[in-house]
Amino acid sequence: MKTELCERFGIEYPIFVFTPSEKVAAAVSRAGGLGMLGCVRFNDADDLESVLQWMDENTDGKPYGVDIVMPAKVPTEGTSVDINKLIPQSHRDFVDKTLADLGVPPLPVDEAKSEGVLGWLHSVARSHVEVALKHPIKLIANALGSPPKDVIDRVHEAGVPIAALAGSATHARRHVDNGVDIVVAQGHEAGGHTGEIGSMVLWPEVCDELRASGAAVLAAGGIGTGRQVAAALALGAQGVWMGSAFLTAAEYDLGVRLESGRSVIQEAMLAATSSDTVRRRIYTGKPARLLKSRWTEAWDAEGAPEPLPMPLQNILVSEAHQRMSESSDPTTVAMPVGQIVGRMNEIRPVADIIAELVSGFDEATKRLDGIREG
Amino acid sequence: MKTELCERFGIEYPIFVFTPSEKVAAAVSRAGGLGMLGCVRFNDADDLESVLQWMDENTDGKPYGVDIVMPAKVPTEGTSVDINKLIPQSHRDFVDKTLADLGVPPLPVDEAKSEGVLGWLHSVARSHVEVALKHPIKLIANALGSPPKDVIDRVHEAGVPIAALAGSATHARRHVDNGVDIVVAQGHEAGGHTGEIGSMVLWPEVCDELRASGAAVLAAGGIGTGRQVAAALALGAQGVWMGSAFLTAAEYDLGVRLESGRSVIQEAMLAATSSDTVRRRIYTGKPARLLKSRWTEAWDAEGAPEPLPMPLQNILVSEAHQRMSESSDPTTVAMPVGQIVGRMNEIRPVADIIAELVSGFDEATKRLDGIREG
Repeated sequence: MKTELCERFGIEYPIFVFTPSEKVAAAVSRAGGLGMLGCVRFNDADDLESVLQWMDENTDGKPYGVDIVMPAKVPTEGTSVDINKLIPQSHRDFVDKTLADLGVPPLPVDEAKSEGVLGWLHSVARSHVEVALKHPIKLIANALGSPPKDVIDRVHEAGVPIAALAGSATHARRHVDNGVDIVVAQGHEAGGHTGEIGSMVLWPEVCDELRASGAAVLAAGGIGTGRQVAAALALGAQGVWMGSAFLTAAEYDLGVRLESGRSVIQEAMLAATSSDTVRRRIYTGKPARLLKSRWTEAWDAEGAPEPLPMPLQNILVSEAHQRMSESSDPTTVAMPVGQIVGRMNEIRPVADIIAELVSGFDEATKRLDGIREG
Repeated sequence: MKTELCERFGIEYPIFVFTPSEKVAAAVSRAGGLGMLGCVRFNDADDLESVLQWMDENTDGKPYGVDIVMPAKVPTEGTSVDINKLIPQSHRDFVDKTLADLGVPPLPVDEAKSEGVLGWLHSVARSHVEVALKHPIKLIANALGSPPKDVIDRVHEAGVPIAALAGSATHARRHVDNGVDIVVAQGHEAGGHTGEIGSMVLWPEVCDELRASGAAVLAAGGIGTGRQVAAALALGAQGVWMGSAFLTAAEYDLGVRLESGRSVIQEAMLAATSSDTVRRRIYTGKPARLLKSRWTEAWDAEGAPEPLPMPLQNILVSEAHQRMSESSDPTTVAMPVGQIVGRMNEIRPVADIIAELVSGFDEATKRLDGIREG
């Protein structure tokens, strides 16, 4: 399975995997894809530095990249202490009451409360870029569209290309006009931030829009098997961008473990069907697809407040996320995941997932040959 | 482009096209697909009889089928006079005020008001089945899931297979358990009634769910080009089910014509992008994807009433639909269409659309061969 991106990035397969876990990212790169480590969870750039050092030591010299989260518009800057003043008390009361109603235990008294994800503040995301550029990264992706021009210039000067997520052909065109090299066309079925347009319609539209520009397109949203890789490449993409399907990788070690050896969130994902996601603003303030749970249902109930804008909403719910992830109840979780969660029914090593993507692609394309030849 | 469905139905390509226009349906069958004539607009079965006689004379002996709309649950029966009593006056007032605000002209004084679509009343849909079975139809599809058991038995006794739409693997399984022969797996991006699951995720799930049953799967939702046909067959479907993309066929002659030779609704569709649809209950009472317009926006505005259940909602809005379709303003229309509307940018003969589906499929699969062989 070779496209022009394989030679360009020195990878065996045009499979780009976003993951918050360095264990998974390194395993993807070792298995022939491009592991893209998510930086947003690193409020402190020194922690990112340590993890990238680990990546350098554990990728066998294979290429990898990083994923940052920089909104196009600069959100309110400041520490969480300043930002906290912008959160209405009624919202805090709703969160407290909901957690009590759902029976989510408080944090242990000696545990620090999460400040919330600050990675999408420009100051923090810039520090991620600076740290990453000290390492042999091959790609920086921004999960929220074009980064600011000075960041694009800085990254390009370092010889690193930039990818950006887009939910429409118009967004994709704007990113490329801004200097972005690779567009991740993310369909409605994807986990995390998504637009309204389904992958089946979005991918070929973005490919056609960008054909003359020379920018490459990665297909995202709904990919978990080799058949879906074949569909993505049939629709014109040069590669695929995946995320959800690697949350149930054996190497994924984030979150509190249960006796089963899996985390609460993994247990919830293993049990979910493709109907068990919702697209809501409750995680970050922008529409993001999440695993359906008693937590998301509470925000849908009558009397629930409207979610706050980014970055306030995540700060509002950050302690709640922490409390839920430390509880042992898979019915109360807050987790971005795509509709492909219905197919995430077992824990598999990264190498096995990648091997199926390749063999499933081969089988699907051979079946198509038979249909074409009649 | 041959699958097992070609021999089974005596068709050249596994392309099934739902259309309310007998001109389009006949042209699809003549071009090698299976034209599926929508019956729901025929409140009087005698009108359907005349149109099917026309089909028999204009399909050159090629196979065709019909599409009925029979809800799984029996809705309130009765004539529109009885049903009208169930519609709140406040809903009627909202519709009247909205039409006035939007500047939609009243009907000419000598024109009969539409009674609304009665085709989804079981009594009317059963009359469609009886009329259709007198003609050499090759397939009856139900746009709302499994028909009642006695209807399935009646159709099977006549030697005709039954197709049913499904928006999830669970629905698909239920249809097959009820005796349905072919499942149309309709993704979120489709026009008309749709579920939440995107085509990229839904199609392979339904294919896997039904593999052991022997029931065939048609992929629906987001298909307008040969690349999308390739994606559908890569994902495991035995054929495709299309609708929206043939609303801008040159043969499509429903609706009032403008000086351009096109209808108001065609003008609106030619101008729309893939972002210009919404999924709402305002057309039939069940969630259906519609072209975004000032009419759909009025129902989204603050103070707009909740849509009524099927079949009341369509009866409530039927005169409004009639008035809008007879006005000459493409910004006030009520029309089911999928996200593929963004690619419906020119009026083309049916034969040209089919030819592109076939050549586009060939090109896409040959590109995949190159990627596979590296």
